[in-house]
Amino acid sequence: MKALIFDLDGTLIDSVYPHTLAWQQTLHEAELRVPAWEVQRHIGISGKLLVRTVARARGRSFDEAAIEQLEARHDELFRDYAPLQLPLPGAIDLLRFLAEHEVAYGIATSGRRSEVQGSLQALGIGPDTVVICGDTGSGKPEPDLFVACQQQLGEPPADCLIVGDSVWDVHSARRAGILAIGLLTGGFGEQELYNAGAMRVYRDAARLLAAIDELGLEFD
Amino acid sequence: MKALIFDLDGTLIDSVYPHTLAWQQTLHEAELRVPAWEVQRHIGISGKLLVRTVARARGRSFDEAAIEQLEARHDELFRDYAPLQLPLPGAIDLLRFLAEHEVAYGIATSGRRSEVQGSLQALGIGPDTVVICGDTGSGKPEPDLFVACQQQLGEPPADCLIVGDSVWDVHSARRAGILAIGLLTGGFGEQELYNAGAMRVYRDAARLLAAIDELGLEFD
Repeated sequence: MKALIFDLDGTLIDSVYPHTLAWQQTLHEAELRVPAWEVQRHIGISGKLLVRTVARARGRSFDEAAIEQLEARHDELFRDYAPLQLPLPGAIDLLRFLAEHEVAYGIATSGRRSEVQGSLQALGIGPDTVVICGDTGSGKPEPDLFVACQQQLGEPPADCLIVGDSVWDVHSARRAGILAIGLLTGGFGEQELYNAGAMRVYRDAARLLAAIDELGLEFD
Repeated sequence: MKALIFDLDGTLIDSVYPHTLAWQQTLHEAELRVPAWEVQRHIGISGKLLVRTVARARGRSFDEAAIEQLEARHDELFRDYAPLQLPLPGAIDLLRFLAEHEVAYGIATSGRRSEVQGSLQALGIGPDTVVICGDTGSGKPEPDLFVACQQQLGEPPADCLIVGDSVWDVHSARRAGILAIGLLTGGFGEQELYNAGAMRVYRDAARLLAAIDELGLEFD
């Protein structure tokens, strides 16, 4: 194994729960009542697909322009709900360890670039790091973002590992032909991540770092 | 089976996620950094026990007076985070069905009475319904609240069923010698609830109502 590809929200940054309430309120304003747990289980796919999914289940639909308005409203509410958008336990240490040991890594997130700048900054991720955002193509569970990251890192899929918190990361990884590791920090249950196809589930980035020798990564 | 005993937050009312962010911010202000998913997995136990648990894991402790201050701060923040505190899908229909078919039911919640009035009102629960609140004794996962509810309903434990969303409800039910049904509406995974000892897990109160004939309740 030569490279790690990380999801961002819920994996490195503690942002799934404010995203959940921001989406729930956005949808409520559009007269879609969606329980918070159901919203939370859809964080990690693109905003567009989230809206389509919960709307279809309720016999509704929104055109592209309406979805863009909802995404803008979500962004606005997210800033109110996320005063504590912080790196998750071990996230900064893990990235620092990888840098020190010259293990290649990148980020692939369904979030749009404008939305994720604060998170990247909080993690100390600079312009040298490969960061693939959702506005560059199809979001998860399509494989595109992970594939783009893997290609920019220049390692074959079989030598990469994806680290994510949601079943969408794991599905997306499988479609990209890359093995996935799940973390519990986005609120999915361990069994949900294994059922999706994760090869291993750790509590958080801190536990992954403590178990880094198990992963078959090449480093000194 | 002659009576149902319901948990409130996450079971009948969509309040677990705002409780999560309100507690996370309260703890953050006390210089305890606890990821949201870890807070969420502790919603349903008493506030006192939540603070003790996450504090002990971080080598901290708070005396009674400090915990009361934290609880007050949580209550204040909760009101900001919960503009959408709504009945969960099927909750009102289920309670209405039980009333129409003269099936006894009650509520047993770790929440304090001052805190839950709005929820009871939103559900249309009046003064005739047995409601046991956390300020009357030891909160979950102690069995006290469920036992008090069962006794007031006047049916033996073997003829009651508890309906809850968290592993704390299920643990508490088992200590009370009462079978438990889990719902996914508080954000726990299905397997987590089965592992805790739930005899059955439904998606939400709506699915429970659709399957009401499976439960062995006596009604016409």
